[in-house]
Amino acid sequence: VKTLKDAGHHVVEEDLYKGRFDAALSAAERQSYYSTQYDYSAVQNEVDKLVAAEAIVLFFPTWWFSFPAILKGWFDRAWGPGITFDHANKYSFLKPRLLQLRKMLAVTTLDSPWWVDQLVMRKPVKRVLKTGLFQACAPKCKFEMLSLYKCERLTAAQVQRFTDRITRVFNSWV
Amino acid sequence: VKTLKDAGHHVVEEDLYKGRFDAALSAAERQSYYSTQYDYSAVQNEVDKLVAAEAIVLFFPTWWFSFPAILKGWFDRAWGPGITFDHANKYSFLKPRLLQLRKMLAVTTLDSPWWVDQLVMRKPVKRVLKTGLFQACAPKCKFEMLSLYKCERLTAAQVQRFTDRITRVFNSWV
Repeated sequence: VKTLKDAGHHVVEEDLYKGRFDAALSAAERQSYYSTQYDYSAVQNEVDKLVAAEAIVLFFPTWWFSFPAILKGWFDRAWGPGITFDHANKYSFLKPRLLQLRKMLAVTTLDSPWWVDQLVMRKPVKRVLKTGLFQACAPKCKFEMLSLYKCERLTAAQVQRFTDRITRVFNSWV
Repeated sequence: VKTLKDAGHHVVEEDLYKGRFDAALSAAERQSYYSTQYDYSAVQNEVDKLVAAEAIVLFFPTWWFSFPAILKGWFDRAWGPGITFDHANKYSFLKPRLLQLRKMLAVTTLDSPWWVDQLVMRKPVKRVLKTGLFQACAPKCKFEMLSLYKCERLTAAQVQRFTDRITRVFNSWV
């Protein structure tokens, strides 16, 4: 099996740049965040895809040890209350809503070497993704992450080995 | 002294929302990132303010243990090569360029309690800001950060104590 499509999965692509996704949560959206109903009408399309997914694959570059702004905007706007979580009462944190989500894979590139990300920075992107977002909102989801370090100075063989790792994860899903 | 202005400092405000700042680094900008000259013409105004500053104060909410998208976009687009750093050769990391910057204060709000940010998440926002951005690009800059935890359920007195802490930092600057 080469792709998830070959294995009979229904694959829906979301290219935030192609769709000219507006990254900034608006003041009106923020005001509605703690009202009875968060108003996500401007990102309805992204929300529909998100809540229908049983698996999510994120491909993104890591810039400044964090998400590109446009991807952060997807979390700020589409991962709202009533969608991926409900507000907690005072005894708990978020109440998760992405209960149908079973698998997620994050694939990223960094120019930094592995030890700066892991030992100096303590893996901020992985920690925010895994603990802050997916474990909080999708407790049944198996989380995997592949990071391509020193991505500006790789040989073709090194890139190939990395893409092989992505394929192996997909093969384990089918 | 109540404000930095009272102390004779020239204070320039930058409200990214008011200026409708476009957070997404464009494909053309990214292509120019590794060319001889990064093309930051679309964010010239933000760059001019940034390189002229001797001190920076950032006010922002922390969402999902990271920057709001619009602030991340400011780092993605205005903190480019030839502005805040130069590309490293293979023996070093970034070469810093913000050598005139002496002080920075980050002020943020989080709904999470302090121990989740610090013990579970390992302070991802502070680590990215301090180590990833300011220590890399502005080595002479003294870094301070004030975090207001559990910000959705505070008394007026608690908020006042926090604003007093901000004032104390400003007073130490004048």
